[in-house]
Amino acid sequence: MKTIGVFDSGFGGLTVLHELIPLIPGARYLYLGDTARLPYGSKSRETIARYAISSARFLADQGAEMLVIACNTATALALDDIREALPIPIVGVVEPGAQAALTAATESRAAIAGSHVLVLATAATTQSGAYSRTLGALRLRATEKACPLLVPLVEEGWLDSSAHAAVTLDVLRIYLLEAFEQAPEANVLLLGCTHYPLLKPLIETTLKNLHHPMQIIDSAAATARAVAALVPASKTSGESSRPECVFYATDSIEKFQRLGSAFLHQPLSQVELVDLGG
Amino acid sequence: MKTIGVFDSGFGGLTVLHELIPLIPGARYLYLGDTARLPYGSKSRETIARYAISSARFLADQGAEMLVIACNTATALALDDIREALPIPIVGVVEPGAQAALTAATESRAAIAGSHVLVLATAATTQSGAYSRTLGALRLRATEKACPLLVPLVEEGWLDSSAHAAVTLDVLRIYLLEAFEQAPEANVLLLGCTHYPLLKPLIETTLKNLHHPMQIIDSAAATARAVAALVPASKTSGESSRPECVFYATDSIEKFQRLGSAFLHQPLSQVELVDLGG
Repeated sequence: MKTIGVFDSGFGGLTVLHELIPLIPGARYLYLGDTARLPYGSKSRETIARYAISSARFLADQGAEMLVIACNTATALALDDIREALPIPIVGVVEPGAQAALTAATESRAAIAGSHVLVLATAATTQSGAYSRTLGALRLRATEKACPLLVPLVEEGWLDSSAHAAVTLDVLRIYLLEAFEQAPEANVLLLGCTHYPLLKPLIETTLKNLHHPMQIIDSAAATARAVAALVPASKTSGESSRPECVFYATDSIEKFQRLGSAFLHQPLSQVELVDLGG
Repeated sequence: MKTIGVFDSGFGGLTVLHELIPLIPGARYLYLGDTARLPYGSKSRETIARYAISSARFLADQGAEMLVIACNTATALALDDIREALPIPIVGVVEPGAQAALTAATESRAAIAGSHVLVLATAATTQSGAYSRTLGALRLRATEKACPLLVPLVEEGWLDSSAHAAVTLDVLRIYLLEAFEQAPEANVLLLGCTHYPLLKPLIETTLKNLHHPMQIIDSAAATARAVAALVPASKTSGESSRPECVFYATDSIEKFQRLGSAFLHQPLSQVELVDLGG
């Protein structure tokens, strides 16, 4: 049974784990949320790399045979550093997300040459330029927009009740209008942060209100497919075993269980507190 | 010349330093912003105490003869731990803030018995109950309201331009309406986070729109007075020396200089990057 490590600064990576489990049900999953040091998205490359390497090393020490960096910020700023530090296969979310955007552009009526991808992400991710480089290598035009308030809004759960959702809609409207000033022709929207899939219904509403139709891509499903491609077809033929998931958090277990279940769409049992220093 | 250490998880403590400098102009100031590990306000007591102690110890190692914990979260959750760990005088922001609320209640036309203090703060601060205990000991009734989105809004600078400020006003309106449901008679508003003084004009607008007049107290000035009371009157008679300030940050120096100047109301020179582990 393959042991797959999944790492994020917090809870967002659970959206990737949620997509992985049905694709590779026979694996054992170790998930680490570095909640004592989150958020990564507002911090510097050096700090992000230091945190990401120590987190990745922890999962390798626990027996992970491959790693999914289920955090756009850590992928964008530290994927090469993590690969240098560890001798196991490592999959990030940027490349699969960019590939999914290419597929969407190819499938749409517009020619690829007419496609323009708008990437919403954290400040650190956009500053790294990782998405522009990766999309550019696929010959897609790209514009990156930093949206620093979206993670706090998702973590506060301001998504449902009308007064709270109205604030989140206003914030999305501001960010999207600012982005469309730079890229009025953008027709593919790539969610460049694993928190953002929870915002998808509100983003769809905002795009409708702005009369600006776009295809929305999130990298969670694409990343899960990229991971599955690396794992030998080990169908659990006949076995209806539930995959084993062990969760580690560097801060409050209670909060991790409470917030995490919204991202994973199921309760989180077996969360262990770990100290990565600091 | 007294060396005074001032510590915050990030930039907010600079509002306290701003009040300290004119009161004790002859001191040397060492300011540490633990920006690599911020925010503290969403984290657990154990993590906050670990971070706060290592930060305080760093300032003592640099020569601080007394320490100001210019962070409500660190004060509320870790003041006793820091005092146990270090043998120098340590002043937090909760007690001076509570004293300032008492003074405001005493000076107002309402009798103290008719005063009810509403404390706005981070989730960790309100969960600690430190303000309710301290205000209760002063025989003031208190209600604490967690406002987790205010720090991100201040750090994004969504305070001025009309579209951005409108979002911040909506968020303030939601928090205050929720608080008034619990405490409709509250008449003193205590800003229990050193980021919040930057929101004062928008809070005043919101209270006016809600037809709910309140006295607004921030603990920065009260804390500075409490520190000055501990320092022997060392008037720089005749000397017009500018106080020496050295700034330390655990993450990006450039960002610290950029964001910090809004809190200190002057440019920040001499920022050094330090690694506290983690």
